[in-house]
Amino acid sequence: MAFSEFRRLDERSVIEYVKGVPALASKLQLAEAEAEADADADHNITVKEIGDGNLNFVFIVVNSASKASIIIKQALPYIRCIGESWPLTKDRAYFEATALEEQGRLAPNHVPQVYHFDLTMSLIAMRYLEPPHIILRKGLIAGIQYPLLAPHMAHFMANTLFFTSLLFRSTLDHKREVAKFCGNAAMCRHTQQVVFSDPFQVSQYNHWSSPYLDPDAEALLQDNLLKLEVAHLKSIFSERAQALIHGDLHTSSVMVTPQSTQIIDPEFAFYGPMGFDIGAFLGNLILAFFAQDGLLDQSNDRKAYKEWILQTIEDTWNLFYEKFIALWDEHRNGAGEAYLPAIYNDPEVLLLAQRRYMSDLFHDSLGFGAAKMIRRIVGVAHVEDFESITDAAKRATCERKALNLAKMLLKDRRKFEGIAEIVSAIRQF
Amino acid sequence: MAFSEFRRLDERSVIEYVKGVPALASKLQLAEAEAEADADADHNITVKEIGDGNLNFVFIVVNSASKASIIIKQALPYIRCIGESWPLTKDRAYFEATALEEQGRLAPNHVPQVYHFDLTMSLIAMRYLEPPHIILRKGLIAGIQYPLLAPHMAHFMANTLFFTSLLFRSTLDHKREVAKFCGNAAMCRHTQQVVFSDPFQVSQYNHWSSPYLDPDAEALLQDNLLKLEVAHLKSIFSERAQALIHGDLHTSSVMVTPQSTQIIDPEFAFYGPMGFDIGAFLGNLILAFFAQDGLLDQSNDRKAYKEWILQTIEDTWNLFYEKFIALWDEHRNGAGEAYLPAIYNDPEVLLLAQRRYMSDLFHDSLGFGAAKMIRRIVGVAHVEDFESITDAAKRATCERKALNLAKMLLKDRRKFEGIAEIVSAIRQF
Repeated sequence: MAFSEFRRLDERSVIEYVKGVPALASKLQLAEAEAEADADADHNITVKEIGDGNLNFVFIVVNSASKASIIIKQALPYIRCIGESWPLTKDRAYFEATALEEQGRLAPNHVPQVYHFDLTMSLIAMRYLEPPHIILRKGLIAGIQYPLLAPHMAHFMANTLFFTSLLFRSTLDHKREVAKFCGNAAMCRHTQQVVFSDPFQVSQYNHWSSPYLDPDAEALLQDNLLKLEVAHLKSIFSERAQALIHGDLHTSSVMVTPQSTQIIDPEFAFYGPMGFDIGAFLGNLILAFFAQDGLLDQSNDRKAYKEWILQTIEDTWNLFYEKFIALWDEHRNGAGEAYLPAIYNDPEVLLLAQRRYMSDLFHDSLGFGAAKMIRRIVGVAHVEDFESITDAAKRATCERKALNLAKMLLKDRRKFEGIAEIVSAIRQF
Repeated sequence: MAFSEFRRLDERSVIEYVKGVPALASKLQLAEAEAEADADADHNITVKEIGDGNLNFVFIVVNSASKASIIIKQALPYIRCIGESWPLTKDRAYFEATALEEQGRLAPNHVPQVYHFDLTMSLIAMRYLEPPHIILRKGLIAGIQYPLLAPHMAHFMANTLFFTSLLFRSTLDHKREVAKFCGNAAMCRHTQQVVFSDPFQVSQYNHWSSPYLDPDAEALLQDNLLKLEVAHLKSIFSERAQALIHGDLHTSSVMVTPQSTQIIDPEFAFYGPMGFDIGAFLGNLILAFFAQDGLLDQSNDRKAYKEWILQTIEDTWNLFYEKFIALWDEHRNGAGEAYLPAIYNDPEVLLLAQRRYMSDLFHDSLGFGAAKMIRRIVGVAHVEDFESITDAAKRATCERKALNLAKMLLKDRRKFEGIAEIVSAIRQF
């Protein structure tokens, strides 16, 4: 029996909930006696709340008898890490479930399967990404290399972005999907605030490694050129429905093992600029790079690991580029209405068109990536990469390098022609 | 009694229709006997079909006793000037009515009042723009000056574009409206085809002043740089929800007297790039300019009129610029979420932000205007400005100048910094 109205679940009521939903009881392989709502036979079911993100509550439910497990994720009508003082629509769960299903269809090896969605409860039941899956950010802090990360992320981004764009879709299909995700406006508004606004104004939630970065944070409020570029990027974010984007594709939205890469938490999904996803991922890798100098110790100078991060940045973009262009070539006679075959299938003009498209996308990605880096250093939500550096002075030194690189990228991004130049620039900071 | 299902009206059934809708019978001041559905007393009601546009049927209904009059506009499920072989959704009437009401609210002196909308019948009843109102394009062909045209158009465009953008609206309001107008996708698709595609590919509906412009039309199919710019503009048109645009703001969508300027026919309305409207209007004025050399005769060398057109082009942009910035300044502390006061109200950064915004908008407008000029010379729907030049060789000479200017503007638009430079360029062709 499903719950008839929203209520916040806890570790006890989660059990009651899963027992009431036949699809979930079945997924957990509960015996009939256990699945009865009033049964006492709960002793095989263990529940653990594991949400360590900023927004939601997440429960692992395990049947210790059968070893079957599921994740129950519930959105509350406010931001978990702030509390009820910062409301945020729980409708986001609907868009997360919808995006998980769409992205799962387009990149099935990289998205956890959704078992059940409950609109009333703002609740998604999905596959538990079992150990050794960990949050990528934690792997980056631990210095673990993931040789398949770049190809997997390139595949996920190329597929989800290409197939939801006008390169593949007809105008009618595209506008219908755009309209649907316009409903996630409250989440877009949240991003506008935390990424494009708060770092550049006095805001109660802003914080930084004080006093070390006080002048750096103050400088952001006075940097007119930076504000102009941020306004431009914000307008692209707010107005340009280029593809269905994840909307929050940082390194804590990715779970990994050496063999597996899974992209989770698309509750910010909407039709926006592709570069916002690509930039989020690359920008967070750059943050991880700059954190390494604060994480090294006598046993590990992190030099090799920093090289691996740089290589992963380069490979991710280059493989994404290759894969995206391959999809474009493969589907150039399809239903997509952006580049009609009769006009653009001449090899010379197609090559020029693709180069221009990818060049614009590259510059968008750099801009959005840089904006996301800045907000993680002076805004409301920081990253564990830096936060785990306990020596505040050392942390601030790492952060300042990342901040200065980001400011430069935001202002000068159009001067860069390829990812190798970005890697060189990172080395120079 | 309203009709219960769609049927195409003719001059006889229009009478039956208006008698069945109390609001319209009342607007026409029909006496009670006349308003009865089966009355024979129709002798005071005259109906005339006057639709000379490409798409719809338009009836004037006049009560010769009271002198009261209304317009009945009905959308059919195909394009009138082509026939049933080119289907086009009659749902466009809903979006036209919705846009007329929104634009009427924002620029009440420049939009005819809507009296009645009938979704089933795809029908709008609205104010009859009585003589001496004529279609602006006909006035331009006749060489009539309209001293208030530039300020009126600047006012209409500034108000409708500013107040429906994120400069004035909150993100939540904006996304809700964007979603609503996504439903007009079929009309966007039509524009994509006739403006951004057909002129650059072999299409059965394309035609031009043959044989004179054969090489010019052929050259468009081979011009890779042009195709790249067109693809870029098409992506902005298809993806960027900047404001509620009219979507078809050429000089036949404007009715004028020396004192009055009325903007009609927004059935292509949707949330798109502002520059598409501004460009449509300016581009069609430029077409009118180049047509003048084919329209002159011994009694009138049209020199003074050409100067007036150029002045109107310049004034329209400059007055639009002024008015738009004035609205921005006036509402900079309002609900608009694009440029938050705390970040952008510093006078120096506000000035920089406004200059950049208007510069981008100027370049968009030039690009879209140029694309609209090209399609009127080699595409499916030509303009009466050129069509009324009976000497085909002379017409082709005029058209070629316009075409060459448009190609140059499309490719080099970012090199122009102000409208005076555009006027100079027009003079040079």
